[in-house]
Amino acid sequence: MSIYQDIQEQAYEANMQLPKLNLVLFTFGNVSAADQSKGVFAIKPSGVPYEELTADKMVIVNFDGKTIEGNLRPSSDTQTHAVLYKNWSDISGIVHTHSTFATAWAQAQTAIPIFGTTHADHLTVDIPCAPPMDDDMISGNYEYETGFQIINHFKKLGLSYKEVEMILVGNHAPFTWGKTAEKAVYNSAVLEAVAQMALLTRQINPSAPKLKDSLIQKHFQRKHGDGAYYGQK
Amino acid sequence: MSIYQDIQEQAYEANMQLPKLNLVLFTFGNVSAADQSKGVFAIKPSGVPYEELTADKMVIVNFDGKTIEGNLRPSSDTQTHAVLYKNWSDISGIVHTHSTFATAWAQAQTAIPIFGTTHADHLTVDIPCAPPMDDDMISGNYEYETGFQIINHFKKLGLSYKEVEMILVGNHAPFTWGKTAEKAVYNSAVLEAVAQMALLTRQINPSAPKLKDSLIQKHFQRKHGDGAYYGQK
Amino acid sequence: MSIYQDIQEQAYEANMQLPKLNLVLFTFGNVSAADQSKGVFAIKPSGVPYEELTADKMVIVNFDGKTIEGNLRPSSDTQTHAVLYKNWSDISGIVHTHSTFATAWAQAQTAIPIFGTTHADHLTVDIPCAPPMDDDMISGNYEYETGFQIINHFKKLGLSYKEVEMILVGNHAPFTWGKTAEKAVYNSAVLEAVAQMALLTRQINPSAPKLKDSLIQKHFQRKHGDGAYYGQK
Amino acid sequence: MSIYQDIQEQAYEANMQLPKLNLVLFTFGNVSAADQSKGVFAIKPSGVPYEELTADKMVIVNFDGKTIEGNLRPSSDTQTHAVLYKNWSDISGIVHTHSTFATAWAQAQTAIPIFGTTHADHLTVDIPCAPPMDDDMISGNYEYETGFQIINHFKKLGLSYKEVEMILVGNHAPFTWGKTAEKAVYNSAVLEAVAQMALLTRQINPSAPKLKDSLIQKHFQRKHGDGAYYGQK
Repeated sequence: MSIYQDIQEQAYEANMQLPKLNLVLFTFGNVSAADQSKGVFAIKPSGVPYEELTADKMVIVNFDGKTIEGNLRPSSDTQTHAVLYKNWSDISGIVHTHSTFATAWAQAQTAIPIFGTTHADHLTVDIPCAPPMDDDMISGNYEYETGFQIINHFKKLGLSYKEVEMILVGNHAPFTWGKTAEKAVYNSAVLEAVAQMALLTRQINPSAPKLKDSLIQKHFQRKHGDGAYYGQK
Repeated sequence: MSIYQDIQEQAYEANMQLPKLNLVLFTFGNVSAADQSKGVFAIKPSGVPYEELTADKMVIVNFDGKTIEGNLRPSSDTQTHAVLYKNWSDISGIVHTHSTFATAWAQAQTAIPIFGTTHADHLTVDIPCAPPMDDDMISGNYEYETGFQIINHFKKLGLSYKEVEMILVGNHAPFTWGKTAEKAVYNSAVLEAVAQMALLTRQINPSAPKLKDSLIQKHFQRKHGDGAYYGQK
Repeated sequence: MSIYQDIQEQAYEANMQLPKLNLVLFTFGNVSAADQSKGVFAIKPSGVPYEELTADKMVIVNFDGKTIEGNLRPSSDTQTHAVLYKNWSDISGIVHTHSTFATAWAQAQTAIPIFGTTHADHLTVDIPCAPPMDDDMISGNYEYETGFQIINHFKKLGLSYKEVEMILVGNHAPFTWGKTAEKAVYNSAVLEAVAQMALLTRQINPSAPKLKDSLIQKHFQRKHGDGAYYGQK
Repeated sequence: MSIYQDIQEQAYEANMQLPKLNLVLFTFGNVSAADQSKGVFAIKPSGVPYEELTADKMVIVNFDGKTIEGNLRPSSDTQTHAVLYKNWSDISGIVHTHSTFATAWAQAQTAIPIFGTTHADHLTVDIPCAPPMDDDMISGNYEYETGFQIINHFKKLGLSYKEVEMILVGNHAPFTWGKTAEKAVYNSAVLEAVAQMALLTRQINPSAPKLKDSLIQKHFQRKHGDGAYYGQK
């Protein structure tokens, strides 16, 4: 039994949620679960079908992207996960999918406007879309640089990864994260639902205004503020 | 056994219909069932996943929004339910969801035009969309004021809550109601279907005319008029 | 055991296909199966949920729309079925649904253009859309007149009900028919698929041309012509 | 037991994936599996419902399109499969469907632009759309000529069938292929997902640029190049 069994099981359970939530086709997605105190994370092996996954197949990787334990090759996006865990010390779960509507916004290189309270229940700004990467970043260590593309876009927009737990990478697809792998999966499903509703909103009213600030703050605070009253104590 | 067991079971059964009808993601919806004679209603506890719900977890609240029985925190939208029950004495069920197409119309701040008989089988007017609330209503008792936003919009349009059992709250999402919680859930599913068809109708023909009055009346009356002949006697 | 057991079972089986094929929400659809030699048909009772249906609940009605056998009220659309069976002696199955995409085209009052071979595999012309009925037809025997609206639109367009087994009734929804109830249900599912693809085709290319005649004839004839070679002999 | 049991089982398993992946309505699709060394392939019998299929019902046909073994009539598209196997000696699986989004692009006579990495993970060019066939090809041996329409369009565009494993036939529907029947089915599902995302991308941003070459090459090579690192070794 691995000393990393805890994060392997968290990663396994979270990965298995992706097909149930209709967020992946075949193997087009991956989830990792980190132990920040140990500086390691468990991540889906690359290209292995969900129906063949087990907890002990989750590969253990450190925050420099080196495999620590496991015989399988980790997800091809492993370096992106490593960079984010290393730089953002308050997250312990990351998800990458090619979910339909979120990916369409990424391909359109367009941030998702905040149109309603479903969005504001989770974040107070448009869902950011990082621009496609420079050619030298692409030809270099691509997945490693993808992590910095995400971090740099957050810096540029002045966003906190603790408050905004999702991003679109232009021309590519979404990444989400959270305090746990389970929360990161939850964020992926929320992002997909918000992405679909935003597209439909514009189809109904091409000049639909964004949500006004008072409503944004109200909805975000009632779930996440000091006096939050959503959910059980 | 609670003396409110009847409405707890009604609320439980109705809540469990929401995921089956694909009207909710995670916990983004709630149903209540009222006993108008006792002045109380049973409502879903806040943020509890549907798979963990049981009838006895339904929280009992009075029409002033005070919890009467139950250890869990009631839905964050409880005050809206309370206001509607208190002011509309002929309803005993209320549903709030963020269902995809209905929410998109709400985010577009647009009433759903009456384009066909599916709509007219259930109501004779456009599905109303209340404007976003004023900032002082939002910063005050938000959910309580949401109830009045709904009631006031019905007054402004001269609508009867007995004839029109659904509304969109601008930038937010739909609310539906009815003589029972089961009927209110039925209305939520109808609203979602009508919302999708109306969007598609406009995509096919951007200048599609509304249904003419003779057809509106015919379809509504054959289901709801004195000589109704839809369904069993 | 009813002497109409055969058509009751055919009608029952065909009705139960509608929810499986995602063609109905709640009870928004009905199928009948006729015995042309006896001048009667079995039809779904009005407003009864599919999960409560049994073959012996199917109501037996004659071609003048009078109930011959059964304690339940037949579908509110029964008179439309009766008119079609009486006037079109080669059909023994009729389906009415409010399926999403077909109904959207009906609400848009627009015939579905023949854009591809999926369409031409089943009919050689645009799927017709009858205009909304005149007010005096609506205020009279509405469902009976709906039957004539369909028949008259076919006459006006010079179409044969044996070659074109589906129509949209403007502002309302689709009707399909066939030599059996099972074939009529098949046609409803084909119509819904074709309706969705036609909408998407136009969204991709607003000036998409219709299928050329040589392809229309080829695809229709290989399935339905004298030398048909689709399916088993 | 047939000496062709291997390809019959491959064809059977692959055909049964089509309804599971939501790529077919009724019998609107077919898969074949070839044995290039024997010059034969196993293909779905025409018009037989998927739930009635068994491996031994798969019809054995040679590369000239003549049935070698089996009592059932092979798919009406058999000649297209035969032409492709005969001319493209490195493929051993072919799929034809009328899947919703891919067929819509075919009906719109429009190649699917390469908008993102989901697309580039599988091919480096727009998904080609062959023009509708000439009238003399249609009136001749239609399905046989369809094979050449595909081959000729690849020649005209300078594409290799080993690198691009999918095409749309204008006004008709998609064909995909691969080294195995299983891979060809995988390609059909990828095509449908990419087709949907491309349509949505344009709806969000009508002037969305195509993916830049550096990203195309990076994503294609990491899955298919000499130094590929996607999946297990």
